[in-house]
Amino acid sequence: MMKRSTVKELLGSGETNREVLLKGWVRTRRGNNQVAFIAVNDGTVIHSIQVVAVMESFPEEVMKRVTTGSSIAVRGLLVESPGKGQQVEIQAGEIEVLGDADPAVYPLQKKGHSFEFLREIAHLRFRTNTFGAVFRIRHALSFAIHQYFHDRGFFYLHTPIITASDAEGAGAMFRVTTLDLDHIPRKEDGSVDFSQDFFGRPTNLTVSGQLEGELGALALSSIYTFGPTFRAENSNTPRHVAEFWMIEPEMAFYDIHDNMDLAEDFLKYLIRDIMENCGDDLEFLNRMVDKTLLERLEFVLKHPFERTTYTEAVRILRKAGRTFEYPVEWGLDLQAEHERYLVEQHFERPVILTDYPGGIKAFYMKQNDDGKTVRAMDVLFPMIGEIIGGSQREEKLDRLQNRMREMNISADELWWYLETRKFGTVEHSGFGLGFERLLMFITGMSNIRDVIPFPRTPRSAEF
Amino acid sequence: MMKRSTVKELLGSGETNREVLLKGWVRTRRGNNQVAFIAVNDGTVIHSIQVVAVMESFPEEVMKRVTTGSSIAVRGLLVESPGKGQQVEIQAGEIEVLGDADPAVYPLQKKGHSFEFLREIAHLRFRTNTFGAVFRIRHALSFAIHQYFHDRGFFYLHTPIITASDAEGAGAMFRVTTLDLDHIPRKEDGSVDFSQDFFGRPTNLTVSGQLEGELGALALSSIYTFGPTFRAENSNTPRHVAEFWMIEPEMAFYDIHDNMDLAEDFLKYLIRDIMENCGDDLEFLNRMVDKTLLERLEFVLKHPFERTTYTEAVRILRKAGRTFEYPVEWGLDLQAEHERYLVEQHFERPVILTDYPGGIKAFYMKQNDDGKTVRAMDVLFPMIGEIIGGSQREEKLDRLQNRMREMNISADELWWYLETRKFGTVEHSGFGLGFERLLMFITGMSNIRDVIPFPRTPRSAEF
Repeated sequence: MMKRSTVKELLGSGETNREVLLKGWVRTRRGNNQVAFIAVNDGTVIHSIQVVAVMESFPEEVMKRVTTGSSIAVRGLLVESPGKGQQVEIQAGEIEVLGDADPAVYPLQKKGHSFEFLREIAHLRFRTNTFGAVFRIRHALSFAIHQYFHDRGFFYLHTPIITASDAEGAGAMFRVTTLDLDHIPRKEDGSVDFSQDFFGRPTNLTVSGQLEGELGALALSSIYTFGPTFRAENSNTPRHVAEFWMIEPEMAFYDIHDNMDLAEDFLKYLIRDIMENCGDDLEFLNRMVDKTLLERLEFVLKHPFERTTYTEAVRILRKAGRTFEYPVEWGLDLQAEHERYLVEQHFERPVILTDYPGGIKAFYMKQNDDGKTVRAMDVLFPMIGEIIGGSQREEKLDRLQNRMREMNISADELWWYLETRKFGTVEHSGFGLGFERLLMFITGMSNIRDVIPFPRTPRSAEF
Repeated sequence: MMKRSTVKELLGSGETNREVLLKGWVRTRRGNNQVAFIAVNDGTVIHSIQVVAVMESFPEEVMKRVTTGSSIAVRGLLVESPGKGQQVEIQAGEIEVLGDADPAVYPLQKKGHSFEFLREIAHLRFRTNTFGAVFRIRHALSFAIHQYFHDRGFFYLHTPIITASDAEGAGAMFRVTTLDLDHIPRKEDGSVDFSQDFFGRPTNLTVSGQLEGELGALALSSIYTFGPTFRAENSNTPRHVAEFWMIEPEMAFYDIHDNMDLAEDFLKYLIRDIMENCGDDLEFLNRMVDKTLLERLEFVLKHPFERTTYTEAVRILRKAGRTFEYPVEWGLDLQAEHERYLVEQHFERPVILTDYPGGIKAFYMKQNDDGKTVRAMDVLFPMIGEIIGGSQREEKLDRLQNRMREMNISADELWWYLETRKFGTVEHSGFGLGFERLLMFITGMSNIRDVIPFPRTPRSAEF
């Protein structure tokens, strides 16, 4: 039996005038009574390959089933194409229809469906040019992330998804339970008896693997997580989903400067990798989705990231001579409009801000000696603002304990976290990168629902 | 400032007689009043590097803090070691104690803690030889999986963790909810009003990404998932955890034979990769944890996997001339004892069984024309039995619909799954591999709780 060749293999092959076997889905068909030109795609690359079928060589009942969306197997001769726009094509010898797609009901008949419509048929949208490109890039970006860390001696750590801790306070959490909601067991005082739940206590879906990641780094030196995280926030915006993937490297013996060096190198590596390995898909997205895409990627690559403090950023913003929607004041968090001003207008390059007020940052960040700021670092990008948030971590037990007390974070619950500061504590740092946010930046897609295969949003968990 | 060198870099470096900066954790310390021999480990490799410190060169108050578990920075000369068991060592010039580890309370003082005890301090067990080895191998195996698929044109697909479907029926599920368990909203008939839940309907944690994986494969040709999956089964055994990672490749245009070829090649690739890249860690585990480990890995590599049918396996087992705990009868599922007999006693090689009775397999498997069996395939390994379960999928709409009716699976709920059989359906196949199960096989660890960083089991969700 002849081995099937993928479209990628056929288009990349210089070797023509040989018999090949192609299997794939019909994207379009044109032609006339004499000859049919059938564009076949199998998802391996954005391009389809053209199959040329002389009508009289095939039974009519076969050819009439070769419609958009149908799946076919074609055996034929791979030849140089006389037509424009393709190097090679297949002169069909045999055509078999594997599966029909009734033109009366197949939803991807015509081109130019809206992204909103395609979201409702997310099971089929992989078959479009745009979403094929997006999800091939999603794969390539995932792989580049693993490659980057692997090459640098980082260990991939699978931190837990179900957690009994809610200490990070990064957002609202989903409850995970096996209690029968029709018959919730209750204690004498009427409260829920979680001792009867699966884990014997209340549990939630994780909002971050960082605290557990630190445990790994404080033994293996450098680790990273890359897994799903969750927010139960009722936010229906183009930037929010309830389930998304995060990358969180954590490194022992790294101070905030090492951390910034890593973040900048990492982001540039990933963008360069996608530009090198997904050129066809990127070019398509640049043409059809966002004409400034390639330019914006180049913008990130060509500049050293500006590094300055939050305090300096506030000074710049206050004398910017323009009105922002949100107030700028030392002690308040920066909004995307402020971050974008710094990147796009003021510095004209990506920016890393450090040393934020402790009051707007998490309990685990290293406290500066000024008693006011912490060793946070946020990496700011054009168009989206914050792309990475990180910090050097507080490695001193007493300072960490004081901070937790101030912020009402239970030391009992985090006994294991505190023990890493009791036993051989060391300077360490890390950061978090929202995978989908980076993917939006790299693909030009403006709705996060369009860069994750099956988005989870308020009132929507289809597929 | 001098750049820190990792233990891996130092031990792998031929270049001696140069000043280096080492940071890590003290594993052991021996010596006398004149000289201290300090074994320092930073988790980058299983070996520690020996630091030799002439006592009179350092303040007493520093040296007395250099105890097991403390973290230190050492600046000194990397020299060839005159001692046995190591190529190089460091003659300490400066020693700084970064973090103490009070010998009176540090739990990893003595060697030879039980795995049970170490599970209770999972935040610290990364600092032991065994768990350092296990989690370095866990990383290497993850990376090898990504590398394998990437090199073969598969796309990594992130299937959803939160799902509204419970159709796969692979096991009990965890409920995911934002309803207030103290005040469950109810409909007029008294049932829970899930329209007020986050997703507007009941949702659970996924037991498999396969059905969504098929959607990807039926557009992109070949995909794989690698993510967390969940079982809410109250099983307290060395083989069960509630949260574990699965790999599920899914390939369009693959029949069951292609599927078997892939599974065998994949498993051999992974084992070969770990033997090549994690030799030191494997050797340690072979010496300390399971003396038959390397032999068993070789056993898998050196044999072509035997391929036969379930029906033939039942025939072999029935005339085996030995008693099994569980009955052997056509139509019943095979147990690990049966699977191990086939692999270890009868064929003396890994085995792939195909064509199981439809009654013991999932609804989506391709039905054979005999009306009794389905195109399932299970890969059986020594010691553990089933390591991979897979099948060719039913691509014919009517047969799939009939089967779903017979098994009471809602076609309404799975409308999107059925549509892939309506529109350009093609032959396709896939399988599932439990990541931790393979990791147990490769590390020789006999309890699944010891190959995942922070295991989730009934009544236990610590860390």
